[in-house]
Amino acid sequence: MSLDGWRSPVVGVLGGLGPAATVTFLEQLVRFTDAACDQEHLDAIVLQHSSTPDRTDAILHPNTADDPAPVLVADATRLEAAGADFWVLPCNTAHHFVQAVTHAVDIPGVSIVQATAQAAVEHAEGGPIAVFATAGTVEAGVYADEIARQGGVCLPVPPAIQDGITRIIYEQVKANQPVDVALLNRCVARMLSAGASVIVFGCTELSVVYEQLGLDNRPELVDSLRCLTYATIVRAGRKVRA
Amino acid sequence: MSLDGWRSPVVGVLGGLGPAATVTFLEQLVRFTDAACDQEHLDAIVLQHSSTPDRTDAILHPNTADDPAPVLVADATRLEAAGADFWVLPCNTAHHFVQAVTHAVDIPGVSIVQATAQAAVEHAEGGPIAVFATAGTVEAGVYADEIARQGGVCLPVPPAIQDGITRIIYEQVKANQPVDVALLNRCVARMLSAGASVIVFGCTELSVVYEQLGLDNRPELVDSLRCLTYATIVRAGRKVRA
Repeated sequence: MSLDGWRSPVVGVLGGLGPAATVTFLEQLVRFTDAACDQEHLDAIVLQHSSTPDRTDAILHPNTADDPAPVLVADATRLEAAGADFWVLPCNTAHHFVQAVTHAVDIPGVSIVQATAQAAVEHAEGGPIAVFATAGTVEAGVYADEIARQGGVCLPVPPAIQDGITRIIYEQVKANQPVDVALLNRCVARMLSAGASVIVFGCTELSVVYEQLGLDNRPELVDSLRCLTYATIVRAGRKVRA
Repeated sequence: MSLDGWRSPVVGVLGGLGPAATVTFLEQLVRFTDAACDQEHLDAIVLQHSSTPDRTDAILHPNTADDPAPVLVADATRLEAAGADFWVLPCNTAHHFVQAVTHAVDIPGVSIVQATAQAAVEHAEGGPIAVFATAGTVEAGVYADEIARQGGVCLPVPPAIQDGITRIIYEQVKANQPVDVALLNRCVARMLSAGASVIVFGCTELSVVYEQLGLDNRPELVDSLRCLTYATIVRAGRKVRA
């Protein structure tokens, strides 16, 4: 369905998971779309659904935690009914639940995990890939499965480093607190010295930090939100700004 | 109407006018809502309708330019149908067209112009208020009327300074080009020496600059997007983070 008075394709954003990551994604869409005036930017419908149940909680405690899957399905259905031509979900952990979304709507999705795994595998050139993500993403094998499917090799992240990453995601970015940059740098350095060719920032909260610290000058880091941004712009038939 | 699985009140955002300003508004909503986890943030439906016809063009050339009013009315109707409990429009110039929106939907709106004029009049304590805005906003008297209604006094911006402001808005921020900070500083300094007690950043493109340059340490500057952010958080029944 095409939306009267809008330029197609209209991007549908399943947002709010978390809200800061969605804002960073939208900011990147504006920054990286090759446009010279307002009207040349992408049209998008964004459901900033901050109150969506916690994704990691649902993966780690499926019997007691609230299930985000029906919320995502309802929201994807809303996006389709509202006129979105494809959907994106700027949250890695939630990709554990996307099969239900894919089945529920007729419009296609652009996958952050698929786009990111592809960039990481290309960049690693056969070398080991470490993924910094929520415990939920790790537990669900979201990235491990997709990287293997694309012919890449994963280097598991030891528990002590995972604890640091979890702290940065939950106690700092999601809690609107300052990020412990030294801790993040230690996590990166330890995975590199353990043999990682590429480290994926496979959690959009880490993408917020990636932006804040200007880490795009470090080619060994592949950021998932950047990968989704580029894939979304291309899917919308537009050029990525150099 | 309340939206199943969402926390009310749901904020409806008439966005994309322009897209960068909407992103800054959403970023501020996250930064200034007093929340300790994702789920405590506001739920919002955002129509990032970048291709909406240019507002200033429509005010200055009503006979030849495309009219954004029917687009705004259709989008507000979409927001209401989708379950938004109130609407906001993070664009000052477009407030020239809001009367049509107000008549078309039953949900209330939070006005950026009203919130900003109130802050400016309070802060000016009877002194003159200068408004930096698009030529369209100035021509339509958007701020002059509201400031007068609230008992404030406006200090008109001379054409030479208005030209500089127009350049910053259209050739720099909207065009994704670097901002001429020296030019902005000259405009501010000249209005202060002309007797302004308060200068309103009455264009959301200028609000983007206000954020980038960290101008919230200058009490003589009142930023319209900040005023809308605070008013939205309060209208949603939440606390503004100190």
